[in-house]
Amino acid sequence: MPSIDEDAAGTQVRHAGAEEAVRVAVLGCGNVGGALVALLLADADAIAARSGVHLELVGVAVGDPSRARPGVPSSLITGDAKGLVSDPRVDVVVELIGGVDPARGLVDAALAAGKSVVTANKELIAAHGSALAETAAAARLDLLYEAAVAGAIPLIRPLRESLAGERIRRVMGIVNGTTNYILTMMSEQGVSYAEALVEAQRLGYAERDPSADVDGHDAASKAAILASLAFRCDVVADDVPREGIATVDPVDISFADRLGYVVKLLAVIERTGGSEDVPEISARVHPAMLPRTHPLAAVRGAFNAVFVEGEGAGELMLYGQGAGGGPTASAVLGDLIDAAHHLRSGAPARFVPRVRPTFRPTDDLRCAWYLNIDVADRPGVLAAVARLFGDNGVSIRSMEQVGLGDEARLIFLTHVAREGDVQRTLAGLRRLDVVDHVGGVLRVIDDEEGT
Amino acid sequence: MPSIDEDAAGTQVRHAGAEEAVRVAVLGCGNVGGALVALLLADADAIAARSGVHLELVGVAVGDPSRARPGVPSSLITGDAKGLVSDPRVDVVVELIGGVDPARGLVDAALAAGKSVVTANKELIAAHGSALAETAAAARLDLLYEAAVAGAIPLIRPLRESLAGERIRRVMGIVNGTTNYILTMMSEQGVSYAEALVEAQRLGYAERDPSADVDGHDAASKAAILASLAFRCDVVADDVPREGIATVDPVDISFADRLGYVVKLLAVIERTGGSEDVPEISARVHPAMLPRTHPLAAVRGAFNAVFVEGEGAGELMLYGQGAGGGPTASAVLGDLIDAAHHLRSGAPARFVPRVRPTFRPTDDLRCAWYLNIDVADRPGVLAAVARLFGDNGVSIRSMEQVGLGDEARLIFLTHVAREGDVQRTLAGLRRLDVVDHVGGVLRVIDDEEGT
Repeated sequence: MPSIDEDAAGTQVRHAGAEEAVRVAVLGCGNVGGALVALLLADADAIAARSGVHLELVGVAVGDPSRARPGVPSSLITGDAKGLVSDPRVDVVVELIGGVDPARGLVDAALAAGKSVVTANKELIAAHGSALAETAAAARLDLLYEAAVAGAIPLIRPLRESLAGERIRRVMGIVNGTTNYILTMMSEQGVSYAEALVEAQRLGYAERDPSADVDGHDAASKAAILASLAFRCDVVADDVPREGIATVDPVDISFADRLGYVVKLLAVIERTGGSEDVPEISARVHPAMLPRTHPLAAVRGAFNAVFVEGEGAGELMLYGQGAGGGPTASAVLGDLIDAAHHLRSGAPARFVPRVRPTFRPTDDLRCAWYLNIDVADRPGVLAAVARLFGDNGVSIRSMEQVGLGDEARLIFLTHVAREGDVQRTLAGLRRLDVVDHVGGVLRVIDDEEGT
Repeated sequence: MPSIDEDAAGTQVRHAGAEEAVRVAVLGCGNVGGALVALLLADADAIAARSGVHLELVGVAVGDPSRARPGVPSSLITGDAKGLVSDPRVDVVVELIGGVDPARGLVDAALAAGKSVVTANKELIAAHGSALAETAAAARLDLLYEAAVAGAIPLIRPLRESLAGERIRRVMGIVNGTTNYILTMMSEQGVSYAEALVEAQRLGYAERDPSADVDGHDAASKAAILASLAFRCDVVADDVPREGIATVDPVDISFADRLGYVVKLLAVIERTGGSEDVPEISARVHPAMLPRTHPLAAVRGAFNAVFVEGEGAGELMLYGQGAGGGPTASAVLGDLIDAAHHLRSGAPARFVPRVRPTFRPTDDLRCAWYLNIDVADRPGVLAAVARLFGDNGVSIRSMEQVGLGDEARLIFLTHVAREGDVQRTLAGLRRLDVVDHVGGVLRVIDDEEGT
C-alpha cells in the first residue's frame, strides 16, 4: 500500500513505492487523450520497461460518457471529471480538455487534492501558468506542460533545466503548424492565402474557423509560455502583440524569394534590457522575412521549430512535429513519467519564482523592414518617397522598381530602424499623392539586426 | 550549516539548504574548464537569480599549478586533483580532464566521497558510463554528462527524460564538428579532403593529429552514449564499427550533389529487433549520402545535430554548437544546476538499469548504396557488371555512365540491400577484368530504407 503523508498545508500527498503503479486519470479523450489512453492501455508494460515506472490508467473523464470508445473499457469512462480528480485512487491528473474553463477549476481541484498535474493546455498555462506553478510548488506537486508548446519537441524541459544558467538573448519559434503549412504552400506552389487555407482545412491542419491559428492567437499563447520560461518571468498571452498571416500576399512571398528570404509566422521573444532581477523583454507574434540560410527557413509544412540564441550556448534549434495526437501524447507521456518518478522520490520538478517583467514599447523595437509600395510611374516619385524615409530617420538599404505605368511598385529593404519611425513613415507614405497604395509590409530578421 | 546524513552504504551525503551555496570543484582548466571557471567567478549572482541555486567555486585542479591563469585567484588553484575531490568542502565535482585515465579514478573517488559528478568526458562515459551510473545511483548521487555529446545541444536530458516512454526507432547524428566542417568545405568549395583538413587545422577545428575526429573515434564514443540512452542499454565505444572520412572523394560528393544528396559523417543507431527487455540494435559510424531535403542535410560547418525518429513523437531534430569552450561550459553549467537542485531535494537524477543489448551483424544491415566504378568502355561491360549485382541479390535503382574511354565510370544507386550482399558484390566487381577500379562506395539514407 502506498504511504500517505500530510504536508505542511495538511494536504495528503501519496508517495509511491518503487514497485507500485502510479495511477493516472485522464480528463478529455479527443485526439491527444485518445492516443494517450491507447498507449496507457496497450503499452503499459513496455513503458515500464523503458522508463522504470508502471503507469496504471484508472479513469477517463469525457463530455459524453454514453458514446462508445473502441478499445477503452466502459468501466474507465466517467462523465464526472470533478469526481475523478478528487478520487483517492488517482495519483496524477492529465488535463487534455483545453481552454481555460472548466480546465482551470479541475486543475485547481487536482492540486488541492494533492495530485500532480500534466497538461497540454496552452491557453490555461499562458493565462494562469505562474499562479498554478506556485500552487503546485507550495504543495510539493508537479505542474508539467511539455505538450503545451510545439507538441513532441522537447522544449519546456531544455529551457527550464538544460538552459537554467544560460543568459538567453532571443527565442524565435515557428510554433503554429497550420500557418506554417499555409505559408509553405503559398511559397512553394504560388497559391493564394485563401487557396492554401482551403487545402489546409481539407487536410485537417486548419479548423473550420481558422482564426485561432491564422490570427496568431495560438502562437501568442505559446510565445507567452516561452517567454516565461526563457526569462523566468510571468508573461501572459495578453502581453503579446500579434499580427496574423491573412494579409500576407503571394506577391510579397515571391519578392522575398528574389531577395533571398522566406516568409514565416514567428513568435519572437527577446531580452531587450532591464536587470537580471526585472528584465525588460519583448514578446510578439508576426510574419517576418528570414534569410534562406537561416535554420528556421528550412522548416516546412506543419513542422514546428524553436531557435534559441544564448550567450554561452550560442545558437540552438529544436525541431519536430508540433501537433497531432501521437506526438502530443508522446510529450504528455514524458511528463507523466517525470511526475511518477517525482512522486516516488518525493521531490517535484524544481520551481523558480517568477517576476513580472517590463515590456519594451513596440515603437522602440528595432529591426529591418520590407515595404512594397504602389506608386505613380513619373519623375520625382522616388525622391518624394525617399525624402519621407529620411525625414523619419529610416535608412534605406536597397530599392528596386518593379513594373511600369499602372503596375509600378517600389520594393524597399530598410536598414535596422525603430518601429515607431517605420510606422510614421508608413503613415506619411499613405498620405503622399504619388503613392497609390502601401502593399506588403514585413519585418526582416537579419544578421544586421540588433534590438 | 549543511546537514550530513549517512546513507545505507555509510557514505556521507550532504544536503544543502535552500539558501546555502553549493560548492563546486573543477578538474581541468583548458578550453571548457576555463570558460566554466570564468562563469562561476563572474556570474555567480546572475546564475543564482536565473536558476535559484548559488554555485560557489572552491577549487580548480590543474596539471601545472605554477602557471598563471588570469582572472583565477591563485588560492583556488591546486595541483592535487585527488585531494580536491575528497575535500569535505566540495559538494559537486566537475571533471573536465578528458580521456579515461586519470579521469576514471578521480570520478570514482568523488562518488566514493559522496559527491555528485558532472563531466563532459565522452571517452569515459562511452567506456564506463553504465558502471559509473550504477555506482552513482546506489549512493543517491548524480552522474551527469550533457556536455559529453554535442556540446550545448540539450540532448542527454531529452533522451533520458522527455522521451523516457518513447519507443525510439532510429537516431542519426552529425556529432563531430571537425568532420562536418571538412565535408561542408569539400561540398561547397570543391576542395580535396587534404585541403579541407589543412584549413580546419588552421582554424582550430581539427587537431594536429586529426585521427580521433576523421577516423570516427570521437563519433563512435558519442554513438555509444546515444545508443545507451535511446535504448536504455549498455553500449560501449568498442561496440561501434566505424568508417572515417579520409577516403571520401570530392568526385563522389559532386555525384551525390547531382543525384540530390549530400555526404555527411553520421552516427547511426537503430533498433533492429529483439525484445523490449533485450533489444537488438545497430550502432555505427560512417559517411553516408542524405537526401538534400533531409533536415540533417542543412547542418553546415562545425554545427552538430541529432535526428531522432520515434514511434509516437515522430521526427525530431536537435541542432546547435557541438564544441567550443562557451557552448560546452553552458551544458556543464546546466548539469551543475541540476546537481545542486538534486542535492537540495535529496533526490538525484533518475536511474533506469541498463541491459546489454544484442547487436545486429553488420552483414544483415539493410540500406541503399551508391557505387562509383571505373570500367573499360566497351560493349558488354554493363551486362557483366549488372549480372554480378543480380547474382548477389542486389537490385539496381539507377545507373548512369559518366565519361568515355579511359574515363568511363558507372554510377550506381541500389535499392535497399543486405550489407553482406553488397560486400560480396564489391568483392566480385574487384575481380572482374572489365572493372579497373571500384571508387567511392557510400551508404544512402533514404525514405525507401527499412533496416
